[in-house]
Amino acid sequence: MPEPDDFVVTPYEVRGHIDYARLRELFGTQELSAELLAKFHHLTGGDLHPLLTRGVYYSHRDLAPVLDGFANGKPFFLYSGRGPSGPLHTSHLVPFDLCQWLQRRLGVPMYIQITDDEKFWARSGLTREETVFWGLENLYDILALGFDPKRTHVFFDSRSIAALYPLAVRVARKVPYSTVKAVFGFEPSTNIGLVFYTALQSVPCFWPSWAEGRSIPCLIPCGIDQDPHFRVTRDIAEGLGYPKPSLLHSQMIPGLLGEAAMSTSGDRPDNALFLNDPPEAVDRKVRNAFTGGRSTVEEQRRLGATPEVCSVWGLWRTRFAESEEKFREVTAGCRSGALLCGECKSQVLERVHEFYRRHAEAREKVKSWAESTIVTAAPKAL
Amino acid sequence: MPEPDDFVVTPYEVRGHIDYARLRELFGTQELSAELLAKFHHLTGGDLHPLLTRGVYYSHRDLAPVLDGFANGKPFFLYSGRGPSGPLHTSHLVPFDLCQWLQRRLGVPMYIQITDDEKFWARSGLTREETVFWGLENLYDILALGFDPKRTHVFFDSRSIAALYPLAVRVARKVPYSTVKAVFGFEPSTNIGLVFYTALQSVPCFWPSWAEGRSIPCLIPCGIDQDPHFRVTRDIAEGLGYPKPSLLHSQMIPGLLGEAAMSTSGDRPDNALFLNDPPEAVDRKVRNAFTGGRSTVEEQRRLGATPEVCSVWGLWRTRFAESEEKFREVTAGCRSGALLCGECKSQVLERVHEFYRRHAEAREKVKSWAESTIVTAAPKAL
Repeated sequence: MPEPDDFVVTPYEVRGHIDYARLRELFGTQELSAELLAKFHHLTGGDLHPLLTRGVYYSHRDLAPVLDGFANGKPFFLYSGRGPSGPLHTSHLVPFDLCQWLQRRLGVPMYIQITDDEKFWARSGLTREETVFWGLENLYDILALGFDPKRTHVFFDSRSIAALYPLAVRVARKVPYSTVKAVFGFEPSTNIGLVFYTALQSVPCFWPSWAEGRSIPCLIPCGIDQDPHFRVTRDIAEGLGYPKPSLLHSQMIPGLLGEAAMSTSGDRPDNALFLNDPPEAVDRKVRNAFTGGRSTVEEQRRLGATPEVCSVWGLWRTRFAESEEKFREVTAGCRSGALLCGECKSQVLERVHEFYRRHAEAREKVKSWAESTIVTAAPKAL
Repeated sequence: MPEPDDFVVTPYEVRGHIDYARLRELFGTQELSAELLAKFHHLTGGDLHPLLTRGVYYSHRDLAPVLDGFANGKPFFLYSGRGPSGPLHTSHLVPFDLCQWLQRRLGVPMYIQITDDEKFWARSGLTREETVFWGLENLYDILALGFDPKRTHVFFDSRSIAALYPLAVRVARKVPYSTVKAVFGFEPSTNIGLVFYTALQSVPCFWPSWAEGRSIPCLIPCGIDQDPHFRVTRDIAEGLGYPKPSLLHSQMIPGLLGEAAMSTSGDRPDNALFLNDPPEAVDRKVRNAFTGGRSTVEEQRRLGATPEVCSVWGLWRTRFAESEEKFREVTAGCRSGALLCGECKSQVLERVHEFYRRHAEAREKVKSWAESTIVTAAPKAL
């Protein structure tokens, strides 16, 4: 009899020590193989994004047809989203960093969904004003990563509903309550907005095909915890006459408090670096962050530390190691005991502060055009 | 122990011999008393609509505050709706006839909801193109009753979603799945669109108050089978800061085949007079209609017939008796045996054909302005 798994990964809960290979088996997804990475490498002109080389993206569904199609002249588009419950933290950027890089390399359209309605339905403590406010704030942060204003389209749910609804109506008829109950674990007390919501989350997968009247494949980079949403979408896609969306799954980024994911729900603000944290807060959070270090300096010098469980290594890995060389250096130094946690934290903090400074500037610049990316009209009547 | 009731009345099913007094008890609504009719009589300048005098409207919730408020200078608005699954039949006009008369007498705004999304979700055999097509066709028929273009506002769900959605999002958070399951009898196989839908049906009750930023009472004339929808609305109204809608309930109009209601679902087109029936079909349906007559002429002359169970008397009662005098004459003649069913049918057919001719003309005239009544924008951002 197999051992029971001691972790949980769903769109609404991530906990325990996640065995990512086992999680792929449980979800029935494919491994992001060296062969597929080579396809990426070839398509993107000979380089790979660090999130690909460092194994943060590690799983997929039907990636090969999208890459092969593109190589043969068939365009695809990117889609990812954000539920605006508060400020973004650095791990929220993982899907958007990859999307922005792919957009720049391949010139493909990007669709971003801001689910201000969903977050209002999912979190009883949030007001509508708050989810709309954070929706726009989050959008600035996302666009500031370097998205192309001409190729980036935003569904800000409550403002884009006229564009989304005709297709959502068709999607919703295909999804029985029993499916969302099973996939999301809804209770009798779940409100009818949240029950309906997955219909809206499916729409961007089909929208470009609908708008242009031809089949355009969709690629969704997202945390593997979001996979269940799109299993529903994939199940109904062909019945609506659209291709199933392809997925590229990232691992969860460990929280600064040593938890499985950088989630701050349940009032744990020190588990993540928010993009609107002032420099002192960034310093404090990193200085207090859980690491893979040993109890004493002597022991660490002698035995080395464990990068894989370290939240600071998570920062280097996802964003702050500026080169593969630096990433290898930090990782090796950690493992050998040559790099102690205090020094490692100082080094990463330099880079975090520098990123925050550049990001704040870029963020100011996108404000003039951010709202022009919001799609407000349906492309056709039905 | 009380006898079990041998009838069923819900938004999705009407059958059996309905005991309307008992139904009021079951639903917990109030009787439309002589005192309330007197208030109407006073407000509307000394006359009453036949649907009021003939007892078709017979039940209400909180009607008195609306009428008293209006008498004291506090405006209200009317709201009723239609699920566009096919052509309208004459019984569908019952709420709109009363609304049109009230609008003309009192100068109040009328809000009409055309639920093309709901019907697509509720009837798996209908396409989106069909529910949208019938939505517009039905709207022409409704407006042709004589609504004032300046005071009539239409929510055509899929075209008005930008106007409806901000408020629907707030409503939906207040309604747990368990409520709609209990009220509408939803099953696990019910699609998530239909689960969500009641949120949209509630919106027009609150929309004018939201748009104008002050509390405006809502009066909904509707068949008593629709009462459960608005019990949900009434339960959540005050939590959203809006007044509970008031209701005015009509009895079901018997079908031409002798059934409890003029419903044509389940493929019984001869149970109703559709407004797009050609004259031959109207003749055939009325000639074949179930009546309260006796087996033989001799018996009917001797014992009289029973108007209350007669579908043709239902036609006279709801629309085709042009005066109270004529209505009393037909009713008395039927009961005494002086008026035989064939003659009665000939007399009503004259009036039906005349109404169809006038209605077709009026219908052509509204087409030029019908779409201008459709509300497409939200009055404010949240």
